[in-house]
Amino acid sequence: MIIDIDFSPTISKSYKIYIDEEKEIEVSGKLAIITNEKVSSLHLEWLKKRIKNDFIIIKIADGEEFKNLETAEFILLELMRHKFDRKSTLIAFGGGIVGDITGFCAAIFLRGVNFIQIPTTLLAQVDASVGGKTGVNTKFGKNLIGAFHQPIAVYCYSHFLTTLPKREVGAGIAEMIKIATTFDEEFVSFLEKSDLNKSEDLQKAIAKSIGLKAKVVKEDEKEAGVRAVLNYGHTFGHVVENKTNYKEFLHGEAVAIGIKMANELAYDLGLLSEDEKGRILALLAKNEIDFDFKIEDLESFYEAFFLDKKSHNDKITFVFPKGIGGYELRDNIPKEKVLNSLKKFCK
Amino acid sequence: MIIDIDFSPTISKSYKIYIDEEKEIEVSGKLAIITNEKVSSLHLEWLKKRIKNDFIIIKIADGEEFKNLETAEFILLELMRHKFDRKSTLIAFGGGIVGDITGFCAAIFLRGVNFIQIPTTLLAQVDASVGGKTGVNTKFGKNLIGAFHQPIAVYCYSHFLTTLPKREVGAGIAEMIKIATTFDEEFVSFLEKSDLNKSEDLQKAIAKSIGLKAKVVKEDEKEAGVRAVLNYGHTFGHVVENKTNYKEFLHGEAVAIGIKMANELAYDLGLLSEDEKGRILALLAKNEIDFDFKIEDLESFYEAFFLDKKSHNDKITFVFPKGIGGYELRDNIPKEKVLNSLKKFCK
Repeated sequence: MIIDIDFSPTISKSYKIYIDEEKEIEVSGKLAIITNEKVSSLHLEWLKKRIKNDFIIIKIADGEEFKNLETAEFILLELMRHKFDRKSTLIAFGGGIVGDITGFCAAIFLRGVNFIQIPTTLLAQVDASVGGKTGVNTKFGKNLIGAFHQPIAVYCYSHFLTTLPKREVGAGIAEMIKIATTFDEEFVSFLEKSDLNKSEDLQKAIAKSIGLKAKVVKEDEKEAGVRAVLNYGHTFGHVVENKTNYKEFLHGEAVAIGIKMANELAYDLGLLSEDEKGRILALLAKNEIDFDFKIEDLESFYEAFFLDKKSHNDKITFVFPKGIGGYELRDNIPKEKVLNSLKKFCK
Repeated sequence: MIIDIDFSPTISKSYKIYIDEEKEIEVSGKLAIITNEKVSSLHLEWLKKRIKNDFIIIKIADGEEFKNLETAEFILLELMRHKFDRKSTLIAFGGGIVGDITGFCAAIFLRGVNFIQIPTTLLAQVDASVGGKTGVNTKFGKNLIGAFHQPIAVYCYSHFLTTLPKREVGAGIAEMIKIATTFDEEFVSFLEKSDLNKSEDLQKAIAKSIGLKAKVVKEDEKEAGVRAVLNYGHTFGHVVENKTNYKEFLHGEAVAIGIKMANELAYDLGLLSEDEKGRILALLAKNEIDFDFKIEDLESFYEAFFLDKKSHNDKITFVFPKGIGGYELRDNIPKEKVLNSLKKFCK
């Protein structure tokens, strides 16, 4: 006997991303703000004035090494201890780490509660906070445990960026260059002409990046197609992070290195001209995110591609720019071709 | 500036429940069978013949106390160690505990992979394996961490029930009586006339129960409405489990006690006649699941309702039968009325 159970689409979810909008935040149930010491000491007072509810604060340790199941459990047990229920809301108040782990907790607490993203770093604003990817790391790699869980709203305030260290601004700009290069030549031109040290230019670039990301995510929430293009620079960048134990470079900085590596290979494959490769390199240099990274051992660098959760059946999916503003996915690049391009990055 | 991101329904998922169908199981990627020592020693050889893929076996400890985040992490790390990827599939091969934790791991491994339910207990066949509720327990209560994640298929074989202890059969029958009482008078009549010790009658009852459950779940996957009716007997049952440290009664047995308690209150509220109350009681007795449970302390029993994840804003949502085959949800029953009905269960 066969019983057919058909979940016709019953879930429709939409949300708004507020960029520098003066809007009070109000929810109907209990509220918890998940943050870290640094962000709360700098900006909690400012945020408080904009929240109409009472709330509890759950502080977690700062750093990629604490984005794990143990910290998630700590948050979840705190919510239970305070008798949070299905109608409760979590606010992720911090950078990408806080956003990812808070979103993950919201996804699995009582089988899913609402959460709001209030990203305080440029990288989280332009990339991590939009799109519903949540997760934690394990010793086998980053974000290997997680869920797709969309926030109910995202609030971006450029106010938070005033206290951001220069390196973190650069890491965010790397993600902007990433999305511009594969999706929008006009945006690349804008980045070339503008000065992101000027807040006016930066704000325009933030809005443009978020708009592009939202468009991609809307089209392909679960990364079955076009969303994979957002991994441009990441396939290589993840290996760079892995090889430097997630300590030497910020995520965005590793992505910048990954962009350079992907572009070398794209150039060798005839997808990118010398001039186009030069334009992106100049853009990285102009924003002081052109880093020197040397591969110690080519073979072991190559092996680390297979730790990536996007690899499948011993195939690596590479994302390349195709000219400026275009992209191409390839999962059939011979190993020797990859190694040959990477040689330029060796010691 | 406001960017609108609209996830129009893009996810449609349907799956089949195979009841005693001789069908080979074949998946395209890597395969892991999550099970426990008992089930694998009894039935793995039988199952093996029906699986066309190679697979790894991950055994977890048996018992509600091991259905926790630690065991889930153990499973997840095993999958990573064996380089499972997004195209891999998990099989939950066991009772409700194995099904819940495997489904949860499938929900959060690499942000979601496929899983198949092969329930080996009656309770898991008629209830737990259908509907996509997954989760683990914490010290604060059952299934407080979890996700909605639908299997890609459910395979029910009555073959497994031949080795099932009598108590476990009874626990499954309790869930059948639960769903019959609130949704289908005809099914109640069938249960009254039939003898579930006979495999033919049992098989009919299994198919009927699964069909009813599938219908409810399809209508309301995320428990925003009618699915809550499936909690009939559970609001009280969960407290019984909590008060006996999950040791004295099987889940289905606690549900049977919960049904009796809910029916007493339903009778006092005029939702159930004396005759109807008697019919359900007789049905429990006939199947040897009419247990004697005594409440030690009424106040503390009542307090425990609020540990339930369905309680919200200090309101308890009770599910009552309304006659036989109907139901009524109530969240406004005065405490004294509840205590008054429960007095009959006191020492």
